Amino acid sequence: MKLFTNINNWINHRSFIGDNENIGFIPTMGALHKGHISLIEKSIADNHRTIVSIFVNPTQFNNTQDLKNYPSTLDIDINLLKKLGVHYVLLPTQNDIYKDKFNYKISEHDLSLIMEGKERPGHFDGVLTIVMKLLNIVNPKKAYFGEKDYQQFKLIEHMVDSFFMNIEIISCPTIREKDGLAFSSRNVLLTKKQRMIAPQFPKELRSKKKIKDIKIELLKSGFEVDYIEKYDKRIFGAVQLGKVRLIDNEKE
Amino acid sequence: MKLFTNINNWINHRSFIGDNENIGFIPTMGALHKGHISLIEKSIADNHRTIVSIFVNPTQFNNTQDLKNYPSTLDIDINLLKKLGVHYVLLPTQNDIYKDKFNYKISEHDLSLIMEGKERPGHFDGVLTIVMKLLNIVNPKKAYFGEKDYQQFKLIEHMVDSFFMNIEIISCPTIREKDGLAFSSRNVLLTKKQRMIAPQFPKELRSKKKIKDIKIELLKSGFEVDYIEKYDKRIFGAVQLGKVRLIDNEKE
Repeated sequence: MKLFTNINNWINHRSFIGDNENIGFIPTMGALHKGHISLIEKSIADNHRTIVSIFVNPTQFNNTQDLKNYPSTLDIDINLLKKLGVHYVLLPTQNDIYKDKFNYKISEHDLSLIMEGKERPGHFDGVLTIVMKLLNIVNPKKAYFGEKDYQQFKLIEHMVDSFFMNIEIISCPTIREKDGLAFSSRNVLLTKKQRMIAPQFPKELRSKKKIKDIKIELLKSGFEVDYIEKYDKRIFGAVQLGKVRLIDNEKE
Repeated sequence: MKLFTNINNWINHRSFIGDNENIGFIPTMGALHKGHISLIEKSIADNHRTIVSIFVNPTQFNNTQDLKNYPSTLDIDINLLKKLGVHYVLLPTQNDIYKDKFNYKISEHDLSLIMEGKERPGHFDGVLTIVMKLLNIVNPKKAYFGEKDYQQFKLIEHMVDSFFMNIEIISCPTIREKDGLAFSSRNVLLTKKQRMIAPQFPKELRSKKKIKDIKIELLKSGFEVDYIEKYDKRIFGAVQLGKVRLIDNEKE
């Protein structure tokens, strides 16, 4: 497994990989869990080479405390990636990625303004901008995204199509704990008590109840509810347990 | 010379052009003049193949009347391109380019907000977005832009760098009439009398006078002055003669 912290070194290496070698790419913010692992295993099965990036993207955090609290487990992540058979790891620096000081932005003006976009102003500008940069740097044939962040996946899929980027965007099903809680890097921030309550959230999303009744049940269980909304034949939700924010979605 | 009105047909054709064949690209809005010709001739000299796009990009016009009045000389343009030895012409439709209804935008938050960006709100969002799309569609090695639109050239150069696009952005000197007026598609819209006054504009920019004195001279000659500003060791200006807007710049 080759590790690149310098973008130009990677781009130079990339230029020697022939067009007949398919590259699969999984962009991450580290703190890897079984959700990431499923994307990586899919990429390894589908492509000749797999590259994973780890970059905690500051521009998608509208809340500085959330950015500070974001878990980091770099050594464990790198050992895991090696064990999984990943070929390349890209660990770019903030200065290299944002040499433009985030002067250039991608923004979307429809889907990005509801749900997560409404609750976290500017979030998707940061997401779309970093993903565009990473896709151009990596130049993969396929890139993999988890359905837990379904709104993000759709926005990226449309962006790639709208800008005529020659990359296949692939979504993979949400991976869950036995009790139904979706794997998320933020789960480790939950207290024991919060962790016990957390599975109520996906359970309610799957319940087929009315949105209003789902909200009431979640509030009763001790969640703060950011939103519960239907879109694209799915039901989406974001809740908070103390300072930890969880999102999830289910097919209707 | 091959002509493509369907983007997918071009992309399919493009996929058969080997990496050892360098492609040079000149994006235009048609109404071709000697400025365009100089870019095209440079590309033909520098690359194995040259492609020119003609697309009057609606999203960069903040003024609908300006868009309506924009000159169109398609048959003459195509004959000219053939004579010059251009290999491909791309004539995409608005629906194909903006299948996303301009939901996805590139914006810049520094240089794009002064001079042309200040006078024409949203103009550079439209420019950057269309150029990103066209560069991804064409996938050239080099793309050519005229220095008459120097602010545009700088913004595109920085965008390509900021998004790690593997394309060389090349600027070419402004081509001028014998009397000093920069070639521009909008020049044909000038009345005879306005055309006689117009060369005063570049003459004043070259005069080394103080900005205030340049403005006074231009106003005396019958111009409306949008701005005269110094930036990046150049002096930039935009003026109007009746409904026709002219821009230009000179090294200080």
